[in-house]
Amino acid sequence: MALVASVGPQRERSRPSLDALSDLLGGDLAAVNQLILERMQSPVALIPQLAGHIVAGGGKRLRPMLTLGCARLCGYRGTRHIALAAAVEFIHTATLLHDDVVDDSDLRRGRDTANALWGNKAAVLVGDFLFSRSFELMVGDGSLRVLEILSRASAIIAEGEVRQLVTANDITTTEEAYLGVVEAKTAELFAAASRLGAVVAERPRAEEEALDRFGRNLGIAFQLADDVLDFAARESELGKCVGDDFRDGKITLPVLLALNRGDAEERAFWRRTLEEMDQRPGDLERAIGLIERHGAGAETLRRARLYAAAAIEALSVFRDGAERRALIEAAVFAAERGH
Amino acid sequence: MALVASVGPQRERSRPSLDALSDLLGGDLAAVNQLILERMQSPVALIPQLAGHIVAGGGKRLRPMLTLGCARLCGYRGTRHIALAAAVEFIHTATLLHDDVVDDSDLRRGRDTANALWGNKAAVLVGDFLFSRSFELMVGDGSLRVLEILSRASAIIAEGEVRQLVTANDITTTEEAYLGVVEAKTAELFAAASRLGAVVAERPRAEEEALDRFGRNLGIAFQLADDVLDFAARESELGKCVGDDFRDGKITLPVLLALNRGDAEERAFWRRTLEEMDQRPGDLERAIGLIERHGAGAETLRRARLYAAAAIEALSVFRDGAERRALIEAAVFAAERGH
Repeated sequence: MALVASVGPQRERSRPSLDALSDLLGGDLAAVNQLILERMQSPVALIPQLAGHIVAGGGKRLRPMLTLGCARLCGYRGTRHIALAAAVEFIHTATLLHDDVVDDSDLRRGRDTANALWGNKAAVLVGDFLFSRSFELMVGDGSLRVLEILSRASAIIAEGEVRQLVTANDITTTEEAYLGVVEAKTAELFAAASRLGAVVAERPRAEEEALDRFGRNLGIAFQLADDVLDFAARESELGKCVGDDFRDGKITLPVLLALNRGDAEERAFWRRTLEEMDQRPGDLERAIGLIERHGAGAETLRRARLYAAAAIEALSVFRDGAERRALIEAAVFAAERGH
Repeated sequence: MALVASVGPQRERSRPSLDALSDLLGGDLAAVNQLILERMQSPVALIPQLAGHIVAGGGKRLRPMLTLGCARLCGYRGTRHIALAAAVEFIHTATLLHDDVVDDSDLRRGRDTANALWGNKAAVLVGDFLFSRSFELMVGDGSLRVLEILSRASAIIAEGEVRQLVTANDITTTEEAYLGVVEAKTAELFAAASRLGAVVAERPRAEEEALDRFGRNLGIAFQLADDVLDFAARESELGKCVGDDFRDGKITLPVLLALNRGDAEERAFWRRTLEEMDQRPGDLERAIGLIERHGAGAETLRRARLYAAAAIEALSVFRDGAERRALIEAAVFAAERGH
């Protein structure tokens, strides 16, 4: 926890970012991006078109950066981590494509979604293609241990997505059920991505497990901060668009906390907007107001920081150095970006 | 070709079937079914519900039967082929789920589709789950060669599905383009399923390739016969429902042949029904009549028989015996079931 405190109060001076990690990785991240571009090619022109759109708009490459950074932390000096980081990003990209179909989303990070531009059918099938390509990359790496980790993670992610679908639009969802979905659909891939760093470096199982814990807790922190950003008073510079989750009727932790602290009339509001999906002009603003009034955003971010602290704690088995400091900052960033 | 001729004229006496293959496999197919049931379980109840529906209605288990039968043909006496046959069926099942979403299909083999019963979202996500489970089964087998074959096949299948989407509702599709789609989306999995028989038995690469050719040609024959069944004058006892492809606007070989042999007025009919998707009462009957008049169904079945003959020819490197005879009958069945 000391580590979190050390970057906590000073945060205002220099906001935590992924810059240190990115600088440390040097050409590795460029190599991952290059490999992603190569492996999404196909004679069927629609595939690179659609995949290029989602890959280009896919954000920060946080998951592959964790694979690369954790490999460096473990002293790895080879090149296997490049293909595995690309495989992780392909799984993430395939999931995003299917998510947007499932959510009927038209916008992601302020850009048209692939399904809005090319239709649901193409988005489903190109997602399948990228998922298959991901496995081809892993097979090319040739380690059954890697395949075991990522195939298991993929099944858990899919299971989490189905669980989210089943519990969607249900304001009686418990916090435990919500966190179960977050751990499966989001944190599992962060855990696997980080664990791979120890696997390629052939480090002992205890280090694998420490990196799994690091990634898993960072992933939960990341998702909680993401949930808060959806109800931010202004669009963030990080690309998240305010109100996406609300419009999809997602019951996230800020909503659950506000709901449980609210009165009968507020409960009726949440039921109408998120369960019955009857949303009217001004509803998003009212939701933001309720979450603010009940301190639900602040409480969610407090919990995100606890998960970030657990992620940082998991790194204590590794020696101090630029790699560990960069990964610690990434964990702080995951939780703090909600501010 | 002699082999085809030998079963050709006598066909009327005893229709070719999968019975010989099924009898030969004994308990292996039951073991595959048991494993499929086990591995589709999940604490998320919707997953086994939905997966159970498609698995139960999924037909003949032809693809896993090919893995089992080809393993026997290669003299394999172990148990690895059980898990691999289940992995093949999971890939097929995942593809069916996504296909029905992509085609907006309400019926498959006369039963409600999973997407009709549980919605497109659940069908997409449970498909992803089954696909991940398939890779978990392969990883459990522990052979990188198997993973290489099936991950490559999966990418080719997805590519074929996208190609089919791109060329859908286009009556200027060429026969070559159509056959390219069939080879990717259907025949590739038959080829991989069959090839695995030689892989588990650790046979020389030449036998692997012979079984790949066997499965690939059988798969094309199977798809061509399937395309003809869609325009059969009566529902077949094989579960295929007449008119499914027509209602989806699919441009299959019987349509292409009838179209290219038809006059301008007929061309306008095909354009209206399959390109513009403006279908009216009586259109399916007219399509069936046009395909009959131009001998397009008979010509498609003639070609299906040529592919079946090529499949059978590929088995010539294996010694005669009950296994080879059962696989030969399966190839004949694939082409002849269109009658």
